[in-house]
Amino acid sequence: MPTTVKAYAAPAADQPLAPTTIERRDVGPHDVLIGITHAGICHSDIHTARGEWGEVPYPIVVGHEIVGVVEEVGSEVTEHAVGDRVGVGCMVDSCRECANCEKGLEQYCLKGNTGTYAATGRDGQPTQGGYSQKIVVTEDFVLRVPEGISSEQAAPLLCAGITTYSPLRHWGAGPGTRVAVVGLGGLGHMAVKIAAAMGAEVTVLSQSLKKQEDGLRLGASRYFATSDPDTFEQLKGSFDLIVNTVSAKLDLDAYLSLLAVDGTMVNVGAPPEALSLQVFSLIPARRSVAGSNIGGIPETQEMLDFCAEHGIGAEVEVIRAEQVNEAWERVLASDVRYRFVIDTATIG
Amino acid sequence: MPTTVKAYAAPAADQPLAPTTIERRDVGPHDVLIGITHAGICHSDIHTARGEWGEVPYPIVVGHEIVGVVEEVGSEVTEHAVGDRVGVGCMVDSCRECANCEKGLEQYCLKGNTGTYAATGRDGQPTQGGYSQKIVVTEDFVLRVPEGISSEQAAPLLCAGITTYSPLRHWGAGPGTRVAVVGLGGLGHMAVKIAAAMGAEVTVLSQSLKKQEDGLRLGASRYFATSDPDTFEQLKGSFDLIVNTVSAKLDLDAYLSLLAVDGTMVNVGAPPEALSLQVFSLIPARRSVAGSNIGGIPETQEMLDFCAEHGIGAEVEVIRAEQVNEAWERVLASDVRYRFVIDTATIG
Repeated sequence: MPTTVKAYAAPAADQPLAPTTIERRDVGPHDVLIGITHAGICHSDIHTARGEWGEVPYPIVVGHEIVGVVEEVGSEVTEHAVGDRVGVGCMVDSCRECANCEKGLEQYCLKGNTGTYAATGRDGQPTQGGYSQKIVVTEDFVLRVPEGISSEQAAPLLCAGITTYSPLRHWGAGPGTRVAVVGLGGLGHMAVKIAAAMGAEVTVLSQSLKKQEDGLRLGASRYFATSDPDTFEQLKGSFDLIVNTVSAKLDLDAYLSLLAVDGTMVNVGAPPEALSLQVFSLIPARRSVAGSNIGGIPETQEMLDFCAEHGIGAEVEVIRAEQVNEAWERVLASDVRYRFVIDTATIG
Repeated sequence: MPTTVKAYAAPAADQPLAPTTIERRDVGPHDVLIGITHAGICHSDIHTARGEWGEVPYPIVVGHEIVGVVEEVGSEVTEHAVGDRVGVGCMVDSCRECANCEKGLEQYCLKGNTGTYAATGRDGQPTQGGYSQKIVVTEDFVLRVPEGISSEQAAPLLCAGITTYSPLRHWGAGPGTRVAVVGLGGLGHMAVKIAAAMGAEVTVLSQSLKKQEDGLRLGASRYFATSDPDTFEQLKGSFDLIVNTVSAKLDLDAYLSLLAVDGTMVNVGAPPEALSLQVFSLIPARRSVAGSNIGGIPETQEMLDFCAEHGIGAEVEVIRAEQVNEAWERVLASDVRYRFVIDTATIG
């Protein structure tokens, strides 16, 4: 039997979030019912709810950085038990049969993974996200949240954490590698923490030096302002990996000039506009420009375990549900250090 | 004592090549004097001689696909002996001390390698290329041409061969990988032969189907016209590696859509104009756009040995020196299958 739960939803693209109720599906044999305790606020939530990334069904409940406690499991569930602390990220399902799913790369599912919100689930219903009291998710897309990370600090790992962990791992960040993180926001601050924990030498490239003290505290050894043209001259050819967490349009060729031979600049966000690329920025040092999308389920679990082992969580400001509209405005103004997390006990 | 040798030189950017004489330096302790027998014609020769890639000192002798026979060696030379068949490619020196040189990646020398022509040698003199009777090169930049490849078929390997071999090797072309080669010209025809010999499944993407028969004969299993929009629909997500040998401006996003997850599109030529890149073409399948520049000296030797072992040489049309201006016009008109090689015995 479906469960009615309280949630905060956008009634329309141009309206603020407001309390409402939504239905969660009956707990099927492979499902897990999670009592949500914390939901992180990701910039994507705002883009999606406001229809900036395409049409969505209203009312829509967003949120894909979810932590909670298992309240009920289906008859066939083996991986999770009532009382377990668990998490849900950006995906709640995928085809599970294609070459990518078979490799644990569900984020690149050839049939398209099922987003935690604004997608259509296998039951034909629109998926609704984490700004709510409970959620029902098929067990394979539920992660274990290990001891040693608080739930509020764990929630943003489900998107901001894995989005940066995956490319850092894929492109070999570790001892002896020189990693630059572009932008020190929700994603960037996780990239700095994780890359430093992996043993890489981390440099932050930020618009200004405003957050320099934070950057160094979070694990960077150097911090440069990209508004200073000297930065690009001084750092020429000096990075093995650049993780660009900024979605604004930037001068790709200038950033590529900072890469050493075989270096990669990986983008985890993208501006709506096309960028300009001189192929001659790549050829003289066998450089690459790449993109990366969150991470697969096995890697997300690996990331959570890694973060617990290294005592890493997000830097968060916990808010009450009724503060969510104000928090969104502050996200848009980059006025957050570094992630808002909703205490979902305050919903309704 | 310097040696005076006959050569074909461009007297100025806007004049045809004409016979002349140039001086080759005295054979130093580490030098090898090579009697050139064959010199391939590369499109870069034309760009450089015509001043299209920046100012060059005139008269200039181009040519960086050189095969010949050792005529004299310096007192310290150990790797080469009089009578050996040898080759010289796009570089005749590098700093030999930087991190890249130490890894055998002299093409990415941090101080800049010394080009075979249009550069300044360690002796302070402008370097002059292979459209000449003899050349003096420091032994470490002289390659052994193995038995089993004719000299005329070997010459183009020194640029067209290594330029395609290196990225194919670096990005793992081999059994089970799906490689697309964009453009079937001097570089493209070598990419097809080499990728097929490595065991990859090779597809040619060419403007039209004009050279389809050749492409299949050279080792491709499929051949598609890029002028047909269906090609892009049909081949969506189906390659692990795209080697783009075309220097013309192209629709990067369309080509990127042909890559499977973790696929790379590597460019070995570049248009003077910037390309347009949507970062969203990269993110949904962790794709990369990369560039690659020739190959290092150890890898160039490896390539020559590989080609000899697999019976691969360039498809060539051997010409006499006095035909060189006509051959250049035919190169510009893409009227060559697939490389002109000058029989340098005909110079002067």
